[in-house]
Parts: sequence; C-alpha cells; structure tokens
Amino acid sequence: MGRVIDVAEYAKGVLDGNRGVLARAITLVESTRADHRAKAQELLVELLPKSGDAIRVGITGVPGVGKSTFIDALGTVLTEKGHRVAVLAVDPSSTRTGGSILGDKTRMQRLSVNQNAFIRPSPTSGTLGGVAQATRETIVLVEAAGYDVVLVETVGVGQSEVAVANMTDCSLFLTLARTGDQLQGIKKGVLELADVIAVNKADGEHEMDARKAARELAGALRLLRPPDALWHPPVLTCSGLTGAGLDELWSRVLEHRSTLTDAGELDERRRRQQVEWTWMMVHDELWRQLRESAAVRALAPSLEEKVRSGELTATLAAEQILQAFQSDSR
Amino acid sequence: MGRVIDVAEYAKGVLDGNRGVLARAITLVESTRADHRAKAQELLVELLPKSGDAIRVGITGVPGVGKSTFIDALGTVLTEKGHRVAVLAVDPSSTRTGGSILGDKTRMQRLSVNQNAFIRPSPTSGTLGGVAQATRETIVLVEAAGYDVVLVETVGVGQSEVAVANMTDCSLFLTLARTGDQLQGIKKGVLELADVIAVNKADGEHEMDARKAARELAGALRLLRPPDALWHPPVLTCSGLTGAGLDELWSRVLEHRSTLTDAGELDERRRRQQVEWTWMMVHDELWRQLRESAAVRALAPSLEEKVRSGELTATLAAEQILQAFQSDSR
Repeated sequence: MGRVIDVAEYAKGVLDGNRGVLARAITLVESTRADHRAKAQELLVELLPKSGDAIRVGITGVPGVGKSTFIDALGTVLTEKGHRVAVLAVDPSSTRTGGSILGDKTRMQRLSVNQNAFIRPSPTSGTLGGVAQATRETIVLVEAAGYDVVLVETVGVGQSEVAVANMTDCSLFLTLARTGDQLQGIKKGVLELADVIAVNKADGEHEMDARKAARELAGALRLLRPPDALWHPPVLTCSGLTGAGLDELWSRVLEHRSTLTDAGELDERRRRQQVEWTWMMVHDELWRQLRESAAVRALAPSLEEKVRSGELTATLAAEQILQAFQSDSR
Repeated sequence: MGRVIDVAEYAKGVLDGNRGVLARAITLVESTRADHRAKAQELLVELLPKSGDAIRVGITGVPGVGKSTFIDALGTVLTEKGHRVAVLAVDPSSTRTGGSILGDKTRMQRLSVNQNAFIRPSPTSGTLGGVAQATRETIVLVEAAGYDVVLVETVGVGQSEVAVANMTDCSLFLTLARTGDQLQGIKKGVLELADVIAVNKADGEHEMDARKAARELAGALRLLRPPDALWHPPVLTCSGLTGAGLDELWSRVLEHRSTLTDAGELDERRRRQQVEWTWMMVHDELWRQLRESAAVRALAPSLEEKVRSGELTATLAAEQILQAFQSDSR
C-alpha cells in the first residue's frame, strides 16, 4: 500500500464489486498501522449502511473434518442458486506461523475460479481479538460489494468458535461419525453454540455410520438443550465430496433464519454482537496502549528482574506498572 | 470480618499454624474490598520470606475422574509419611453458582478430620483471574503456616488448568481408561501441560483396561513430546479407592522435582510464574478500573443504545469509551 489511500475511491470500487479494490480494502482493514486504521474506519462508516443484508454462517469443526471440500461444494451449490458467496476465515494460529491454514484458495478448487465467489484467507497479524476484528470488518466490505452469503470458517481451537459465533447469524458445526463414548470427545461448549449440526463424509461405505452417529448425537443434544428453546438444532448428514445433503442443510440454515427473524431474535442477535464487539475492542485497545506505553516499556525490564529475583512481590510490581501507565496517559 | 484487622497478629497466628487464624487470613486475601486488599498485601509481604518451601502439585481431570477420592487417599498417604498437606481449589464455575464444587470437605472424609491436613474450597468471587490470584496468595499463607505439600485441584474447563499449572511445580493429570479413538477426546493442551499422568480407578475388573489405556497413552505421548525434553511425563495407573499406585505416583512427582531442581529449572519455573502473575494482575486491575470508572459508567448505557440502534459504529463507540476512561484517570 505505497500509494495514497483515497477512501471515496475505495468505497466506490467496493460498491461496484471491483474484486481488486475489495482485496485492497480488506488489506487496509487488516492493517495495524495507525494511519491505515483511521482510513479503514472512514471507509467502514461510509459502507456500513450498505451492509447487513447477507446471510452470515459460521462453519466450525476440527481439522480433518473436511471443511474445505465442504465449503467448496456448498459455495458452488449456492452460486448455482444465484447467490454471491464470500468465504472468510478466523484462524488465530496463523498469527504464530505467519501463514494461514484456512481459506487457502488451492483447497477450494471449484470456488476459487468461480466469478460469483470471493475467498479471503484469515488475517495473519495480532491476537485472536485482532484477527476477529479484521474479519468482522471484512464482512462489512464483502456485503457492501454485493456478496449475499458470507461463510466464515474456523478451526475448533480455543475461543475462535466463540469469536465466529459472535459475528454470524448461524453456527454450523461439522463433525465425523462418532457414536457412544466417542461423543464425549465433542466439546460441550461447541455443541451449545451450534445452530445446525452435520455429520460430514456421509458417503460410500461411511453413509450408514454417519446416519447412526447423527441419530445418537440428536439424542444427546435433546438432553443438553432446554425443551422450550426457540430453535432445536437439527443433526443432519452430508458429504462435501458427493454434495449429498447440502440442499437439505441449506434449507435448515434458512429455516433457522426465518425462525429467528419471526421472533425478532435475528436483529437482537446482531445488536448484541455489536455491543459485545464494542467492549472487546475497548479491552484490546486498552491492553495494547498499556503494553506500548513508553513509561511501561522503560520500567518493565527492571521490574521483571526484581520480581524474578524475589526482591519485589508480583502485586507491588503490578501496582508500579499501572502507576507508570497512568502517568504516561496524563 | 467485622473486627479491626491486625496484620501482625494475623502473621503470628499463621506462622504458629493456628487453623482459625489461617482460615481468616485466607478470607482476607479472597476479599475484593479495597481496604482488605491493602491489608492482605501487607500480610503477604510479611509472610513471603517464610513461604516457597512446599511441593506444589496441580491436579486436574474432568468431572467423574474421581479427583476427591484420589486427593483424600493421596493426602492421607502423605500425612502418614509425615507431611502436612493443604488442599486448595481453582473452580471458576463457582463464581457463577455462588458455591464451590471443588474442595468440599464432605467429599474428603478422611482428610477433612486429619489434623495434618487443611482443606479450603475454591474462592467464589470474581473472574478466573481473581480466583487464581486468591489461590496463589493462599499458597503463600498455607506454606507460611507450615504445610509442606500443597495440592491445587481444578476441573478440566477452559483456562483453569493453565492457571493452576502457572502456580504449581508439577501438573498431575488424572484420566480414566480410554483407548484408541477415545484418546482423541483428551485435550491435547492438557496433555502438553501434564508432568505426571495417571489412569485412575485402576481397581477390580477395571485394572486390566487401565493398564492397557496407560500403555496406549504413553505411546501417544511419545509422538507429542520432543525427544530431547528434560522430562518425559510417565503414564501410571492408580486407584483412589484402594490406594494402589499412590506410592509409585508420589515417587514420580519427587523424581520430576529433583530432575527440574538439578537442571535449575524449578527455580526458573517459579520465577517465570511470578512474572506472568504480575502481568495478569496488571491486566485484570486495568480492566476493572475501566469497567468501574465513573465516566465510563455514565457514558456506557447511552453508547450501547446507539450501537444497538446502528446510530454509531462499534469502533467509534469503543473510542469514546476509551477517551472517557482517560479523562477519568487524569
């Protein structure tokens, strides 16, 4: 981004659906440079009114469950139905390796050459909070560019499913055929977030196993959920490889959506997400300010040394760091 | 705590091993009242030089693994060897329910009436950070009171194992007999933290299964760990019910300790824990200050409403909250 950033030009390009401009605009919202952040906020304020109409679906599942093949197939089915599909990813591990595992175009062979699809790998800088913020803002951009389905992929690691559930309308959980005791291996927290559950790889010789696993999982879910809940997550089977079950699965996503909409819950869910996002940004920014404060950086090494040697208690050292930060922000 | 708190008197009572004073001192470090916090810090600074000599062991495992029976049995064995044993707990879920599940004396029938044992349930106020801080400070108190073994119990939920690993010398992971695919149900992160692993309930008809599971788990672990690591976590079998394997298990805890000590790693681990603890306290206190800032509290409701209605973007609302906090701390 060597050139001067013209926010109006970016906004027009995104609204026109220009893929090159959209890609550059996403790079802008992913940037952590202060001047880029300011421009990104200008752009987002401009585009926010043009966003919000897409169906936002989070897709989670452990590595090996077949997410890429599934998204490649589902995205293709949706473009054939006339949708324009954006595929984003939240992969905090990419911030450590410097490369994103998710959203890799080479793993979605059909979708990556589809003119009605736009694939963007996970941002690779910052904390989970930073990655999630960039992806939330990217949702605004792709919606303004006319994509009416946004699929946000994540791996079943730590808090990333929660982050994705907090930016989507529907959480889709993919799993493999597991029965009996193996069900215990599925994290309860993930099941509690899921709106639609699908046992993937239900093809060939695995089909019967998948159906059996789906029945058992549905039984287990009935115990977990309050009987008076607005929505009871269905457990389906599907195959990213053959495409079996994808139509049924999408109709359940739409059914979930209309159930929530009719009850006024979809809007409420999105409003709640905005408020949570606000506080998350306050939190991350406040912590960044402290860590980057000149006074804290000047003091920290010697304080850490005193704590290490036992000369100072952790509590008193913490107090001194907080005082240094406060004197700095005065 | 209606009476005036005399720190010197508390310190003397704790050092004398007076159980009543120790219990009140722990209540003091658990308190979130500002004047109590100040007194607690005075007390801790006074007692810190008398602490640090105990063997600190974290004990984790999912509900149902038999932790209470195990601790009751292990603690009894250790007191028979001449140790004085304190049992603490970190249970963040207790902050929601208002009652602690862990450390309940009624679940440790032998230990609860043992004069050489001291059982304290999990503190029940605050975030995981707050609960963990109170438990860390309680370790100082029980060590100053002469307990030379500290067992810190936690459940396998979220970040609580990490918190406990960050305040102990040795992490003991209890599991049940699982083989083959079921091994996948054990969280990799928990295994990476563990220093000693034991398949519990290895008694009666389950003994063979437990031994088989221990062998498979040991095999799986070899793949996870770097071959040149200082310590290779052993996988044992034990029974809290019959006491089988507890002597062997404790000798492995001691072996782990001497391996770390010989390499200078035990001191290094404790020093690193102090530095991490410092930053954790800075983080929690900073966030508390923001949430309780008068300016933020005055502004937040109307800002949240504007974010909910779409009048204001989350990012701009976050900026206004941060500005309010900064004006408050000036």
